[in-house]
Amino acid sequence: KINGDRLWDSLMEMAKIGPGIAGGNNRQTLTDEDAEGRALFQQWCDAAGMSMGVDTMGNMFATRAGTDPEALPVYMGSHLDTQPTGGKYDGVLGVLGGLEVIRTMNDLGIKTKHPIVVTNWTNEEGTRFAPAMLASGVFTGRHTQDWAYDRVDAEGKRFGDEIARIGWIGDEEVGARKMHAMFELHIEQGPILEAEGKDIGVVTHGQGLRWIECTVTGKESHTGSTPMPMRKNAGRGLARITELVHEIAMKHQPNAVGAIGHVDVYPNSRNIIPGKVVFTIDFRSHLQEVIDAMLAEFAEKAPKLCEEIEVGLEWEIVGQFDPPAFDENCVNAVRDAAERLGYSHMDIVSGAGHDACWVNDVAPTAMIMCPCVDGLSHNEAEEISKDWAAAGTDVLLHAVLETAQV
Amino acid sequence: KINGDRLWDSLMEMAKIGPGIAGGNNRQTLTDEDAEGRALFQQWCDAAGMSMGVDTMGNMFATRAGTDPEALPVYMGSHLDTQPTGGKYDGVLGVLGGLEVIRTMNDLGIKTKHPIVVTNWTNEEGTRFAPAMLASGVFTGRHTQDWAYDRVDAEGKRFGDEIARIGWIGDEEVGARKMHAMFELHIEQGPILEAEGKDIGVVTHGQGLRWIECTVTGKESHTGSTPMPMRKNAGRGLARITELVHEIAMKHQPNAVGAIGHVDVYPNSRNIIPGKVVFTIDFRSHLQEVIDAMLAEFAEKAPKLCEEIEVGLEWEIVGQFDPPAFDENCVNAVRDAAERLGYSHMDIVSGAGHDACWVNDVAPTAMIMCPCVDGLSHNEAEEISKDWAAAGTDVLLHAVLETAQV
Ligand SMILES: NC(=O)NCCC(=O)O
Ligand SMILES: NC(=O)NCCC(=O)O
Repeated sequence: KINGDRLWDSLMEMAKIGPGIAGGNNRQTLTDEDAEGRALFQQWCDAAGMSMGVDTMGNMFATRAGTDPEALPVYMGSHLDTQPTGGKYDGVLGVLGGLEVIRTMNDLGIKTKHPIVVTNWTNEEGTRFAPAMLASGVFTGRHTQDWAYDRVDAEGKRFGDEIARIGWIGDEEVGARKMHAMFELHIEQGPILEAEGKDIGVVTHGQGLRWIECTVTGKESHTGSTPMPMRKNAGRGLARITELVHEIAMKHQPNAVGAIGHVDVYPNSRNIIPGKVVFTIDFRSHLQEVIDAMLAEFAEKAPKLCEEIEVGLEWEIVGQFDPPAFDENCVNAVRDAAERLGYSHMDIVSGAGHDACWVNDVAPTAMIMCPCVDGLSHNEAEEISKDWAAAGTDVLLHAVLETAQV
Repeated sequence: KINGDRLWDSLMEMAKIGPGIAGGNNRQTLTDEDAEGRALFQQWCDAAGMSMGVDTMGNMFATRAGTDPEALPVYMGSHLDTQPTGGKYDGVLGVLGGLEVIRTMNDLGIKTKHPIVVTNWTNEEGTRFAPAMLASGVFTGRHTQDWAYDRVDAEGKRFGDEIARIGWIGDEEVGARKMHAMFELHIEQGPILEAEGKDIGVVTHGQGLRWIECTVTGKESHTGSTPMPMRKNAGRGLARITELVHEIAMKHQPNAVGAIGHVDVYPNSRNIIPGKVVFTIDFRSHLQEVIDAMLAEFAEKAPKLCEEIEVGLEWEIVGQFDPPAFDENCVNAVRDAAERLGYSHMDIVSGAGHDACWVNDVAPTAMIMCPCVDGLSHNEAEEISKDWAAAGTDVLLHAVLETAQV
């Protein structure tokens, strides 16, 4: 078993970097705080005797050597970046849990045939630079690096410039590494495990996702002197589509979710009728046919809802992936480990997207989930217990040891 | 008659200061551009032989002396500040039209018993510092100067600090001036005069207004992993209230308007369900009973709409005034002038709030409106014809001469 106290101390130590305003973290990707978090992780990896490789997307790979020079490594990891108002565990647990696995192996003098690598994937959150899981997306061939470098944040800063600025462009070619397998430990970010009283979620599938960026175009005009029948109020387009998205997702619930998280109103003045509203819809399901049905219903109804109130609608898909099914052997390794360790467990679908969903394209992959309080995540109040963190990391240790061959 | 070409040239000259991005202006109050516009106006007033007084709210008063030292001045004026995406005429026409009246009187050697003052009121628009008509509001006793100085813009800058920064705190006590009468020329900002083919709107009433700032509180959580029934989506509160506001206003239409122009979503991330949305409703009518009815319906229904979806609602009134009825003598002076000059005219209600609405509390006041193309205002594409501008200014000249006694 791993050392739960040591793991917890490291989580708390990392959480000091980029503190939020309400007990959580604001350590967004490619900020100075991200650089500081990376440096601390590197220092810990050095101390654990690992060697660090960094690729041109800033992905960090800390390697503990195996006994067979020919054997491909087994990977663990997740991400150290956070939402602007994020928690202390989302992503961080998977990286520092991986580090704790290595520390435990060092303590116990365990040797494995396959090398073991702990990874920190760059820009998983996708808030500062959309889309989410950007660097694992380049690693697995979903995006080109040039495209990723050209993503801009809200201030117009380029991903490529910001990664250079914080000094984390490595020399490895992205995606050149081959993997024997990959395991990602992550908090559930939903309420199911806690409600069911289970220590471990054995993640069999992920949800697929469609991010739809909508631009509703009305006519900027005076709120006081424009007669009601002459208005083209883009804000009403947002209102109608907000409710449409909710209705569509409710139809397929519990197999689907949908909401609008990001909204920009132009010119955003109290006495100007909005001339333009730009917003992003997030639809998800673990069933491909549900994703297709939601998108089709949106495409049919949203333009009509806008037409009725004489505003224009343009939309494009700015993020998408289909529901991943994780590797049977890796999933079994997780389930067996939980069983062997005597932890209560259940099979579960990941509600959120994760780097593992994309690595699954290029290597056998699985995920381990631990509960979080009230299912709350992407919120500074995100919380887990020390025992939950330790149980998840124990399962990670055992699944990895089995796969890497002691 | 006034010199329409000279008036137009001055309008175009002023529009060079703080140009917008689409042919209009961005000369928001207390910015460097505002200071530059003020300096140009002062220079023109000096050249026209007027003496300038400035009060501690930055209101500018350029005086042309009368023949009777005892007589109270007749005021003209409006505002030089613009919306962030504003037009070239909203406010500006009323100030430079006033200047053109003085220039014409100088050309013709006209003397009046009462002095005549051209005024530029500070922060009429209210976009940078809410509420609108802030400085005329202090002048007429609706707000205290301390309260006005403490208004902050979106970046947290104080009105009091910004007016000091641009160097336009004068030495006159605000509101100390007494007025014989006041006339404001303004573009209609609505479509009625153009549609009816009239040159002049004789403004008999203004609309009253209620600005209601709403805060909808939900629960920030992950868009992917929060099951639909567990969501508290503050964005849905905005959506429902957007439609409610529209429905309420439509019931009283054409005697009322209502919309939401300003919206801030928190934390505004594509994969976070909005935990909080702050927005401002703008309800208006020229009938007090309609304003009361709209507010009552909102107060009854909005909390229920939010309760149904388990989000909280707090609201407060952040701007309000009751419908003003302008002074009968001043209104008659405007109507008579239009009639005498042979301009087509109609009585009209002002859809927008104006400094004149508040000056009306302390002095006999009236407004003159000229048409604008497609009723468009608070939009960079705002447009008027040179003839419309000249006709409105002719009427201003005649109404003022009659009131100031040649
Ligand atoms: N785990 C996580 O929050 N990832 C961000 C991408 C997503 O929105 O699912
Ligand atoms: N005239 C004008 O646009 N004034 C701003 C205040 C208002 O919203 O009516």
